[in-house]
Amino acid sequence: MSSFAVTKILSIRVDDVRFPTSRQKHGSDAMNPDPDYSAAYVTLQTDSEHVGCGIVFTLGRGTELCAAAIRAYADKLVGQQVEDLMRHPGRFWRTLVGDSQLRWLGPEKGIVHMATAALVNAVWDLWAKLSQRPLWRLLAEMSPEQLVDCVDFRYLTDVLTPDEALEILRRQAPTRQQRIDDMLVRGYPAYTTSAGWLGYSDDEIRRRCRAAVADGWQAMKLKVGADLEQDRHRLRLVRAEIGPHIKLMIDANQVWDVPQAIQWMRELAEFDLYWIEEPTSPDDILGHAEIARQIAPTRVATGEMIQNRVVFKQLMQAGAIHFCQLDSCRLGGVNEVLAVLLLAAKFQIPVCPHGGGVGLCEHIVHLSLFDYIAVSGSLQDRWTEYVDHLHEHFMEPVEVVRGRYQPPKLPGYSIEMRPESVAMYQFPDGPVWSGSDEGPGIE
Amino acid sequence: MSSFAVTKILSIRVDDVRFPTSRQKHGSDAMNPDPDYSAAYVTLQTDSEHVGCGIVFTLGRGTELCAAAIRAYADKLVGQQVEDLMRHPGRFWRTLVGDSQLRWLGPEKGIVHMATAALVNAVWDLWAKLSQRPLWRLLAEMSPEQLVDCVDFRYLTDVLTPDEALEILRRQAPTRQQRIDDMLVRGYPAYTTSAGWLGYSDDEIRRRCRAAVADGWQAMKLKVGADLEQDRHRLRLVRAEIGPHIKLMIDANQVWDVPQAIQWMRELAEFDLYWIEEPTSPDDILGHAEIARQIAPTRVATGEMIQNRVVFKQLMQAGAIHFCQLDSCRLGGVNEVLAVLLLAAKFQIPVCPHGGGVGLCEHIVHLSLFDYIAVSGSLQDRWTEYVDHLHEHFMEPVEVVRGRYQPPKLPGYSIEMRPESVAMYQFPDGPVWSGSDEGPGIE
Repeated sequence: MSSFAVTKILSIRVDDVRFPTSRQKHGSDAMNPDPDYSAAYVTLQTDSEHVGCGIVFTLGRGTELCAAAIRAYADKLVGQQVEDLMRHPGRFWRTLVGDSQLRWLGPEKGIVHMATAALVNAVWDLWAKLSQRPLWRLLAEMSPEQLVDCVDFRYLTDVLTPDEALEILRRQAPTRQQRIDDMLVRGYPAYTTSAGWLGYSDDEIRRRCRAAVADGWQAMKLKVGADLEQDRHRLRLVRAEIGPHIKLMIDANQVWDVPQAIQWMRELAEFDLYWIEEPTSPDDILGHAEIARQIAPTRVATGEMIQNRVVFKQLMQAGAIHFCQLDSCRLGGVNEVLAVLLLAAKFQIPVCPHGGGVGLCEHIVHLSLFDYIAVSGSLQDRWTEYVDHLHEHFMEPVEVVRGRYQPPKLPGYSIEMRPESVAMYQFPDGPVWSGSDEGPGIE
Repeated sequence: MSSFAVTKILSIRVDDVRFPTSRQKHGSDAMNPDPDYSAAYVTLQTDSEHVGCGIVFTLGRGTELCAAAIRAYADKLVGQQVEDLMRHPGRFWRTLVGDSQLRWLGPEKGIVHMATAALVNAVWDLWAKLSQRPLWRLLAEMSPEQLVDCVDFRYLTDVLTPDEALEILRRQAPTRQQRIDDMLVRGYPAYTTSAGWLGYSDDEIRRRCRAAVADGWQAMKLKVGADLEQDRHRLRLVRAEIGPHIKLMIDANQVWDVPQAIQWMRELAEFDLYWIEEPTSPDDILGHAEIARQIAPTRVATGEMIQNRVVFKQLMQAGAIHFCQLDSCRLGGVNEVLAVLLLAAKFQIPVCPHGGGVGLCEHIVHLSLFDYIAVSGSLQDRWTEYVDHLHEHFMEPVEVVRGRYQPPKLPGYSIEMRPESVAMYQFPDGPVWSGSDEGPGIE
């Protein structure tokens, strides 16, 4: 990487930002009837002109816990020089994740892990800004050796060693530039979830399907799992609108037990479904494997609640998933995402990251671009999620054209929010929550 | 259960109580060099003479996060009548664990799950006090139907249905009384961890081994995993002190990768080890299964960081563990512990709960007694952990005689702490932390 002046992290600011999305049932599914998409939003303030930003995405209540957890790790970053942290990014990662007292509260899962993710991503955002490149390009221009040095291989070496990771990255290195050029022209394939939230009426779904087809989407996803007859009804309705060629995914958001998932999916097989997402508990590796065996050829996807690389490792080992839907804010930030991208490449499992929420799409476009350019080298069965909410609150909202994510252009990880949005949706004192202003732009 | 007057939960108090145990290296192991054993301590205040108490056990930093998480769930209990909650304990459990916004921050793992555990256990403590029985006896006197109604079978039914659970409990029901009588006379077998913390010198270990043998212990555990030669040295030293007949367990506290665990354990096989505990990541079900296959006949134990019943289910399905070391405060309280006891009975895996920390021994004596009396009906390969720290801070400290836990006598779950201890060790303002008093009784 290029050299630049030393940059010191002076302080960490954390905001509790909540959007009242439950008022319109956006984001409603069988497990989550009323989410208020929210974020514990961290800003690393430095002695340079740049700040580093990161997010814990939440569904509303508990955002204050994530904000407090971020503060609990703050003293590991305040006073540090970014260049020192990024000299050995894997080591820096482990100093956060391995805190010997906070680790007990995970380990590497739940609130403490999500808080470390926000901080890790904020450091990467800052680093990319200092490097004057969008994150995807920063990563795509790092050498295989530098990338491997970002990964903590603890608990992975039975399946993936640093040497194997190097080999995977070296295989794609010579042809990176042509895929960079390809992405700058075509963009990365996306699917939309915005048509099929569970709380929507038939008319609303019809209207949204029609709009999606008109906008050029080639793949879309519907929420299922509350009621079998209703699911059949809605799938018929959607298929009628979108025709047989557009890919149709469904998402049960963990509401089924294993036997129920198998039975329910047999009932829905006729609709030619591209994948079933989250058929059961995210903790149930063996359960997913059993479902995958029983419902073939329908394929199984999961990942938005997979806590860390160790669980992804096993889902892949067990043949339990056909699509890896990693979450950029639940895994421990960029470093652990790299580990999972490498695992997926080894097992030849397509990575289709989890989008939506607050800022997830802004994150994952970087990750999918980098994955294609430097890790997997393939677009086969790769579809990155798009949800049309809340982008207007970011400095560089994602851009999708005819169903394809366009590569971000500004330096950084696209996580930085508009100051006026942070102020407006501040919980509990911002105007939207204190009652002085309903707030624009929930849609 | 007997009827009594209605009892309303009026308010919830949470204290951040920290013991500076790191000053003497008590509790030190290969992953946790300097724990300050601590607790987010919850008290349900009621309109009766009784309070209900629960704990999130922590290692120091982050206790404030657990306290805040408990407060985030408080409105689900305040104003409720205990009798209503306990009419369908499984349903009550799910209203806490299933909160549709807080669930995102787990789900069912880490801080949110530990916070629900403290609240669930506090309700059980209160319920047992109102029933005027120690918890183990309250549970042992519930019918199989009532016990099954405490369990949330979500994500379990591929392996354990309510009907199978009933059958397990009914099998032991006719002979419960003779095991109650047996326990009142003999007590429940325990092993001690107090001899072998990693931070102790050779002399300290020798002194403690001798004392343990003199006290009648039949099983003890040593921390390993920092250095192979040192482990061999210490195992030789301990075996020389305790002889060949006392059972010797070792505990690596997750420091190894899978291949490393297998290799290290082959090096230590000569010491006739009863189990290896936590050889690798608690998230690695398939890794534990591989280790178990490779190091047989040495057996594998884990559980203190197993997040919930879904992971225990799989560890048992996969043949990954020979001992189930459930944690009373990490699982979602009594209800989820019941689920795991039933799973273990189905797979015929002995349950040897995790002790130590703050109040864990006070919890687990109840659970082991109940397990023997009503679920497993066996003492074969059952050893419940004992650690000799911090008991003096509880109203009814555990009592161990010649290596056997004595059944608690007072009504409740033995979690209630002495008010003077709570005041003394309050963080950060109690005298021990503000510097005005070093505090007694760390040993």
